[in-house]
Amino acid sequence: MSLLVVGSVAFDAIQTPFHEAERVLGGAAMYFAVAASFFTRVNLVGVVGDDFTEKDADIFRRRRIDTKGLERAPGKTFFWAGKYSADFNDRTTLTTDLNVFATFNPKLPEAYRTTPYIFLANIDPTLQRSVLQQVSRRPKLVALDTMNYWIERTPAELRETLKHVQVLLINDTETRQLSSEHNLLRAAAKIRTMGPRTLVIKRGEFGALLVHNDSVFAIPGFPLDEVQDPTGAGDTFAGGFMGYLASAGRQDVATLRRAMVYGSVLGSFTCERFGPERLRMLTRSEINARARRFSKLTQFAL
Amino acid sequence: MSLLVVGSVAFDAIQTPFHEAERVLGGAAMYFAVAASFFTRVNLVGVVGDDFTEKDADIFRRRRIDTKGLERAPGKTFFWAGKYSADFNDRTTLTTDLNVFATFNPKLPEAYRTTPYIFLANIDPTLQRSVLQQVSRRPKLVALDTMNYWIERTPAELRETLKHVQVLLINDTETRQLSSEHNLLRAAAKIRTMGPRTLVIKRGEFGALLVHNDSVFAIPGFPLDEVQDPTGAGDTFAGGFMGYLASAGRQDVATLRRAMVYGSVLGSFTCERFGPERLRMLTRSEINARARRFSKLTQFAL
Repeated sequence: MSLLVVGSVAFDAIQTPFHEAERVLGGAAMYFAVAASFFTRVNLVGVVGDDFTEKDADIFRRRRIDTKGLERAPGKTFFWAGKYSADFNDRTTLTTDLNVFATFNPKLPEAYRTTPYIFLANIDPTLQRSVLQQVSRRPKLVALDTMNYWIERTPAELRETLKHVQVLLINDTETRQLSSEHNLLRAAAKIRTMGPRTLVIKRGEFGALLVHNDSVFAIPGFPLDEVQDPTGAGDTFAGGFMGYLASAGRQDVATLRRAMVYGSVLGSFTCERFGPERLRMLTRSEINARARRFSKLTQFAL
Repeated sequence: MSLLVVGSVAFDAIQTPFHEAERVLGGAAMYFAVAASFFTRVNLVGVVGDDFTEKDADIFRRRRIDTKGLERAPGKTFFWAGKYSADFNDRTTLTTDLNVFATFNPKLPEAYRTTPYIFLANIDPTLQRSVLQQVSRRPKLVALDTMNYWIERTPAELRETLKHVQVLLINDTETRQLSSEHNLLRAAAKIRTMGPRTLVIKRGEFGALLVHNDSVFAIPGFPLDEVQDPTGAGDTFAGGFMGYLASAGRQDVATLRRAMVYGSVLGSFTCERFGPERLRMLTRSEINARARRFSKLTQFAL
């Protein structure tokens, strides 16, 4: 089944301990769409400026990504610059130029309004809700990402939007912030009273947790022998997770667990090269091979 | 098969965000011995001062722990005081009074010299080696723990001792420090050239990695809804890991993986109460039940 994503497409300037890049394609919706397109058809809603070239748009071509919803606006594309710590576990934002994204008001093309799976990437929760208001058929699953900015600045709007969401994908810091609770299991229980029955807590290189009804599932991070750039790994995780769910067309516990593994596998690939470079050349058979390695990595019998 | 542990028995003063305790039984060998005794017979070598009472020694009674090797010396028992950060992931040492431990020179009672499984807890690597020199029959398996102090202060002695060790159990920070390599897989590969063919990298609440020959095994931390005090969790992990291995009497990959799970399960119990309080009342059936929950927590099928 098809999958709608609404969020940012951006240019990033990235500094890591080993390398710098001044203009790399980025944005949550870009990473998400490319990752999810390995599993299902993706409808992309976002906005880019007039500096976004045909060459930049190449990443969406020859994939199952529909870009009718990718608006072009006069001005510059969203620009983000960040710098990673020596161990990659912390990053500092150096610049955020919203540019055309500042006035982004997502409009769903008619053909997108019945998309059964929806992912609302990290944007203003009021805009996230406006997407749901444009939908003409009750979606099968709505998932959402958010960040500290909205948790701090627009808590009431975020709470309202969360009521309409079944799956929340956020990182561990945001989980603690949103729930005012340090312990992740208790934090998840609190957040589940806000609307989403399913929580995916991303922990970077340390893996991820799935809390779904009364069941908890935990996976370690896939150990990599080379990490070049973790930018977009979380969004790629979300793309793999949601893409797999949409392709399966159901969300029972076993399917959700498999989706976690595919999310983790996709996220791990992203870290291996700068920006989306590893994703560009990734194949479905590499994904399947790494999922099998993930299984071998974690399996044991008592 | 029986298991020898050589290391510290101590009193700890612990400050957490929620609680303080002034005199809690501690020490790597204490945590290790109690944890391992759920699986096998343990021979304990250590030293305590004349402030170590019969009541303190109670923790070793009615368990499969032989304390012939627990020397009593005039003076005070090793004392450590530490304070945890709000999220429990960092701790600061406030006081280290070695006391009788300063002149500790491990002597193996005759009956201990043929113990097939040996765990050298974190002490001076020269003393660790002296233990191996007292052994009268080639052990089946020798495992070792160490810490930043010895990695920095006595690197040559540590390297020499590592040559005689099959399993190294250390945390992720120490892994990076010992190898001068940030990436854990590369760090493990480097350390494996120093002697130990098997590496267990403990990552606290984030789980653990096992690197054995060409196979990597990763487990997440067991998610707890209450953490009171992580002191001793790593030593308890080591006790569960080595105790299980010694009880199995073999160290093929499947057995090593199960040992990782039992180590993680034991470590998780320790965190639930202050000092060794949770371990005191722990039962083997609780361990088995949590191991089954651990299996449910991590299992998926592609």
